Amino acid sequence: MKRYINPEKEEWTRILERPVINMNELTGKVQAILREIQAEGETAVRRYTQLFDGICLGKIAVSQEEIEEAARQVDADLREAIEKAGQNIRKFHEMQKPEVRQLETTPGVTCWQKPVPIEKVGLYIPGGSAPLFSTVLMLGIPAKIAGCSEIILCTPPDKKGKVDPAILFAAKATGITKLFKLGGVQAIGAMAYGAGVVPKVEKIFGPGNQYVMAAKQLVSIRDVAIDMPAGPSEVAVMADGSANPAFVASDLLSQAEHGPDSQVVLVTDTAELVDQVENELSRQLELLSRKNIAARALEHSVSIVFDNEQDMIGLINAYAPEHLIIAMKNYPEVAGKIVNAGSVFLGNYTPESAGDYASGTNHTLPTNGWARSFSGVNLDSFLKKITFQEISEEGIRNLGPVIRTMAAAEQLDAHEKAVSIRLKTLKKR
Amino acid sequence: MKRYINPEKEEWTRILERPVINMNELTGKVQAILREIQAEGETAVRRYTQLFDGICLGKIAVSQEEIEEAARQVDADLREAIEKAGQNIRKFHEMQKPEVRQLETTPGVTCWQKPVPIEKVGLYIPGGSAPLFSTVLMLGIPAKIAGCSEIILCTPPDKKGKVDPAILFAAKATGITKLFKLGGVQAIGAMAYGAGVVPKVEKIFGPGNQYVMAAKQLVSIRDVAIDMPAGPSEVAVMADGSANPAFVASDLLSQAEHGPDSQVVLVTDTAELVDQVENELSRQLELLSRKNIAARALEHSVSIVFDNEQDMIGLINAYAPEHLIIAMKNYPEVAGKIVNAGSVFLGNYTPESAGDYASGTNHTLPTNGWARSFSGVNLDSFLKKITFQEISEEGIRNLGPVIRTMAAAEQLDAHEKAVSIRLKTLKKR
Repeated sequence: MKRYINPEKEEWTRILERPVINMNELTGKVQAILREIQAEGETAVRRYTQLFDGICLGKIAVSQEEIEEAARQVDADLREAIEKAGQNIRKFHEMQKPEVRQLETTPGVTCWQKPVPIEKVGLYIPGGSAPLFSTVLMLGIPAKIAGCSEIILCTPPDKKGKVDPAILFAAKATGITKLFKLGGVQAIGAMAYGAGVVPKVEKIFGPGNQYVMAAKQLVSIRDVAIDMPAGPSEVAVMADGSANPAFVASDLLSQAEHGPDSQVVLVTDTAELVDQVENELSRQLELLSRKNIAARALEHSVSIVFDNEQDMIGLINAYAPEHLIIAMKNYPEVAGKIVNAGSVFLGNYTPESAGDYASGTNHTLPTNGWARSFSGVNLDSFLKKITFQEISEEGIRNLGPVIRTMAAAEQLDAHEKAVSIRLKTLKKR
Repeated sequence: MKRYINPEKEEWTRILERPVINMNELTGKVQAILREIQAEGETAVRRYTQLFDGICLGKIAVSQEEIEEAARQVDADLREAIEKAGQNIRKFHEMQKPEVRQLETTPGVTCWQKPVPIEKVGLYIPGGSAPLFSTVLMLGIPAKIAGCSEIILCTPPDKKGKVDPAILFAAKATGITKLFKLGGVQAIGAMAYGAGVVPKVEKIFGPGNQYVMAAKQLVSIRDVAIDMPAGPSEVAVMADGSANPAFVASDLLSQAEHGPDSQVVLVTDTAELVDQVENELSRQLELLSRKNIAARALEHSVSIVFDNEQDMIGLINAYAPEHLIIAMKNYPEVAGKIVNAGSVFLGNYTPESAGDYASGTNHTLPTNGWARSFSGVNLDSFLKKITFQEISEEGIRNLGPVIRTMAAAEQLDAHEKAVSIRLKTLKKR
């Protein structure tokens, strides 16, 4: 870990610089594939599945039998864990249900907001070395609670045309029944434009590699909404003398094992803690199966020692980490001052992995500084709020003159006349 | 108006086709300007203000004296109207304040969401023929209620370097004090990257021409969030025999006068109403100062007659209009079935202009079909929701095994170990 002691505020941005993701090269390639999918639909999707995933698919849709069979292949332990985590995620996202509130802003003028589910949503679950079945829960459960009428899921097949059983089981446990064996740009294109059996959706959710990210970004310009911009995963730990160095190291490693570009930051007011954490990092790193990946991420990790709490908080808010662990004695107070973060973990017994899997909060979170303006995925992500207004005869009498004056001043005649014609009709009565 | 009688469902998409906005040509130009602004800051911003707005600015910031003077220039009538509209908008957006709800998902595992204002937001108010001071209220009031700590506003200067007094007065009434005389791509670039006196913001709001739209889209890829994608304004009116044809025509014209590319749609179950509305359109059109603009918009407007209510609702939900007026006897029932729309106006005495100015609802709404996945601007647009979790020793004992099983199955060792190291420590006690 690179170590900084009391860096000046002007240096913070440089110290915490994230890797620049240059997508310009990718963009052309990805755009070309998307155009073919838009023009040719399923034919193009199949062609690219053969090219990139090395499999000539029979049916793109996962069959009911495959889902049933997968459920039997998953260990009872894991089935139970997925169900328990699902319960917590369900409870937490159900709590987020917005109420419909109604208000008479002026006598006779009633306004309200009504949350309505986005009708069709598409969830993308990456394949690769580890099957991210936990993301199925994180995206599928709020989609179900929101009441989206069509929820589809795309995930890449292996070379035999199979999907990981845990992903299928998690989908089944979540109540998602429309699954497709599609990965990468093909999956994003199919969901954005529709392709044969794959319906077009209104919003696409989920993580992915840089090709998937570029494809999501491109389709979001004109065709379909997306959950949020993406970037490498991050954790920042704020720790004081009350923190347990072994725990802190274990949390930093949890982040580091995600990928060599993972961002790992330790901020403390206790210089000795940095040494202790570094010792623990060396010790614990050796025990990890993904130790090479984690070691590479640690190479560009940083620790920052301040002599005061205010700077610790200031730096974290400037950085806007995806995950923030506060292992400090007065964590409730510090937490109250955090304004930029995706998800926050409080105290010594709240590791990030709790939120990654099972506490109930969502693990699809804003990275790359987007926590300054974006929330993580939550129930709202699957809803839109439609406003309604109902104006009585009394209401338009009360409000009409205000509207007329403003419309006239904006030189919008017809806007003014839409009110005056109504007021005249009322006068005649 | 082009008229369709009972069109087949397969034809709906074609009938309601929106103009394709081809931004490819613009994009290159806009991108080049943005790059210069990012590299040179204020120098480039001033250069383009001279080039596009024809004014060599002294100070970019609007001075306190200019704001005070503007307030004196605005008629008392208009001042009062702006204040009354502001009160309604304030009440409606204050009602939207989310509560913090907390939940123990598992004994010892407590989770909550905390709404936190986006710190720095930028509002863009177009200039041009009519000063859109109403948009100052629609964006500024929720930003204030959310508690954004820095709210800046950019609007183009006229040839004398002045800003419209009504815009300045609306800003003053809203409590916005940082205003800049910048329009177009220069304004968006300055807010996205920061430029001299103009601070970088985290989210940009507001309407604009196609250059502004392209600039917002480009900066949103990497640098700053934006409110929503944009497109030409739209209204759909659903009307039955109980509708007043003169009112309906006045509402269609309100939309048509916005611009020649405005989308105007009438859906009814009463064929005679279409004739009556068309007669009224001809009559009322003659009285408008912007009649040429409105006439061009009406050229590509459509009316659709169905013999049943179900198809009327189906077509509207497929179209997803920005504004929807329901002038039908059973409007509460019909409104309950609307799932895709920006803002809905109920009954004969609720013209769109009420929501454009003063009912309290927001007029910054999703166009171009984005109402399928986006809400209009509302209090949420200025907030992000940070999740928090606090796990006690009991909590990690309860939840730990679930996390460990899932992390192991996803082959994320360090995630598993971050839990097991804590469980071991607890056992030793």
